[in-house]
Amino acid sequence: MSIAARAFVSDPMVLIPQDIIDFAVSLADAARPVTRRYYRSPVEVDTKADATPVTIADREAEAAMRALINRERPGDGIIGEEHGREREGADWVWVLDPIDGTKSFIAGRPIFGTLIALLWEGMPVVGIIDQPITGDRWIGVKGQMTWFNNAPARTRACPALSQALLATTSPEMFSEQERRVFEAFRDGARTTLYGGDCINYGLLASGFLDLVIEADHKLNDYAALVPVVQGAGGIITDWSGKPLGHDSDGRVLACGDPRLLDAILGATAG
Amino acid sequence: MSIAARAFVSDPMVLIPQDIIDFAVSLADAARPVTRRYYRSPVEVDTKADATPVTIADREAEAAMRALINRERPGDGIIGEEHGREREGADWVWVLDPIDGTKSFIAGRPIFGTLIALLWEGMPVVGIIDQPITGDRWIGVKGQMTWFNNAPARTRACPALSQALLATTSPEMFSEQERRVFEAFRDGARTTLYGGDCINYGLLASGFLDLVIEADHKLNDYAALVPVVQGAGGIITDWSGKPLGHDSDGRVLACGDPRLLDAILGATAG
Repeated sequence: MSIAARAFVSDPMVLIPQDIIDFAVSLADAARPVTRRYYRSPVEVDTKADATPVTIADREAEAAMRALINRERPGDGIIGEEHGREREGADWVWVLDPIDGTKSFIAGRPIFGTLIALLWEGMPVVGIIDQPITGDRWIGVKGQMTWFNNAPARTRACPALSQALLATTSPEMFSEQERRVFEAFRDGARTTLYGGDCINYGLLASGFLDLVIEADHKLNDYAALVPVVQGAGGIITDWSGKPLGHDSDGRVLACGDPRLLDAILGATAG
Repeated sequence: MSIAARAFVSDPMVLIPQDIIDFAVSLADAARPVTRRYYRSPVEVDTKADATPVTIADREAEAAMRALINRERPGDGIIGEEHGREREGADWVWVLDPIDGTKSFIAGRPIFGTLIALLWEGMPVVGIIDQPITGDRWIGVKGQMTWFNNAPARTRACPALSQALLATTSPEMFSEQERRVFEAFRDGARTTLYGGDCINYGLLASGFLDLVIEADHKLNDYAALVPVVQGAGGIITDWSGKPLGHDSDGRVLACGDPRLLDAILGATAG
């Protein structure tokens, strides 16, 4: 199976060495002070080709992580949001998004995050969501339970959409067609919360949110979320319930309670 | 002029005694540990008559503030979001919203706030926005500069909508007609950020956001914002540019740069 076609499906045979998990954590530790230094300081905001904002904090935080990878694990590949790709055919590939939620970062709101994923043969086996200001950190490892601030994270029970606390970063991330789907979920959910970026997925893993529906995600945005959500007992797929993979269309659906996914897909199909 | 008809206009003759400001701060100090205790704990969520959520944290945080007022300043009036009104004809009236942004509180996102306003003859002369988790605190006093975390807060220059970082808590707070107005602002702004509740107004006072447009605000939601925004050099009005008052229609427009309000109102009129 080619990497391009591979979905992030479960493979219980993979056992992730502790030193690799520790190294992933050291990347979050390296990015954190960089981001903290620029938080709520007057940074210049550039606009990238895809119309999203970027700052010196994004660039320097990613550079700090890449320098560590290149020094400590020079054979690993890197796919970075700001500084591109190198050795992406390697067995181990790091997927980095130094600041997911740059708009919130710029506005001085502590609900953005550093995303670090490690792919093994194209599959995310480690995922970290790190909030540099509050210190909140979720660590997901394939086949292990997710940790949040040094305690196990568990999603909560929520089998029905009518009970669900739904979150999405912005209604503007949706195309016209996607928006109609989103609005059906919004109208069926107990309540809807906007903003939040990757932090929403961490809060879902910790049992404070039940459902996150988003679109327009790139690999950098979703790879780290997969081990975090799965290791907490949740499920994260595309909008048709298929596992996320390299060739996903950017539509992401995360449910804290896997029964909620069944209920949603049943309703969508019916 | 009756209180009902009074707008929150400037009156440079009012000088607020320091002991009253200190007392307002002590109310925020009293509410903070209550809210912190319930943050990210499994609290039951009730739905109020106006369909908004409320928890034991909202109720206990307000009760803590009311107890302090009734003990230390028993002649003052109180208008509270959760526990109603008493002595509201008094010269000094406290307007309390223990948790503005209850949805964010429930979801474990540190971007809700405790709002404390002091009205003197119906006019807000002290306003506090307190974030109990991050410790962020904005203190606005009529005729004085606003303070943010023990340093002066100043809005930033942003004379044109096309430069503006716009924030609003949720597109669902708008009626159909209001949504069209909001969408025109959104389409004209540099970028738009969702979520945030009262924290958006604090961040505007601190020069990280340029424009906040919201609707469906009650006195508890906006009274505290007025001294905070004005004391930082910003302007806060209803959607027609009129000062907010007891009889405002709940539509709130805050600009960090007063020239932005002129530009917006010109565009709306033209």
